Amino acid sequence: MAHPPVDLLRGTLDLLILKAVSGGSEHGYGVARWIERATGGALQIEEGSLYPALHRLEDRRLIGAEWGLSDNNRRARFYRLTPEGRRRLKSETANWTRFARAIFAALEASPQSAPAGA
Amino acid sequence: MAHPPVDLLRGTLDLLILKAVSGGSEHGYGVARWIERATGGALQIEEGSLYPALHRLEDRRLIGAEWGLSDNNRRARFYRLTPEGRRRLKSETANWTRFARAIFAALEASPQSAPAGA
Repeated sequence: MAHPPVDLLRGTLDLLILKAVSGGSEHGYGVARWIERATGGALQIEEGSLYPALHRLEDRRLIGAEWGLSDNNRRARFYRLTPEGRRRLKSETANWTRFARAIFAALEASPQSAPAGA
Repeated sequence: MAHPPVDLLRGTLDLLILKAVSGGSEHGYGVARWIERATGGALQIEEGSLYPALHRLEDRRLIGAEWGLSDNNRRARFYRLTPEGRRRLKSETANWTRFARAIFAALEASPQSAPAGA
């Protein structure tokens, strides 16, 4: 619990990567920067977390990858969402939202008695 | 990503336990049942996750424990929040809320361009 951001991030990094590449092809550095910007800097993505996650998602065919040139003319792998990845993004976004709301509800509940109907 | 609830839970179980015992003394079974009720059944707490977490929190002196009798007259350990645990509950609730909101913001952002000022 000393580092809740990291714990929280671990479970949702894959989801945020799918979101980051859902608008078109993006290289790894761009994915990390997008996540940092879109979360207002709350999540900092380390390369040691990012690249294993990208490979894992590629292995599961949720994203596809091909070599290309970045803006500064360096060779980089560009990632895009597959149709299966798009379905997964939708279902996991719904899952994430449901569970985050459930936790919010618990954090706002009375500690000794759960809210009626909750 | 096959089991986002479990991933999400791992990072927040300690926090929910602190919340569960913040209103008074509670035994382990009661903690698990409270979390399940307060999250509307969205989070199911396994004993294999619960008891290690309780011991961890006790080791860190965020909760205290003593033996007592449960409603059905069985010997059980009862947990309560320490002053340090109460401070931690407050700060971690704020952390969790901040990071969950950051992820919500990213999930709602345009995938290719982060919202201005986000």
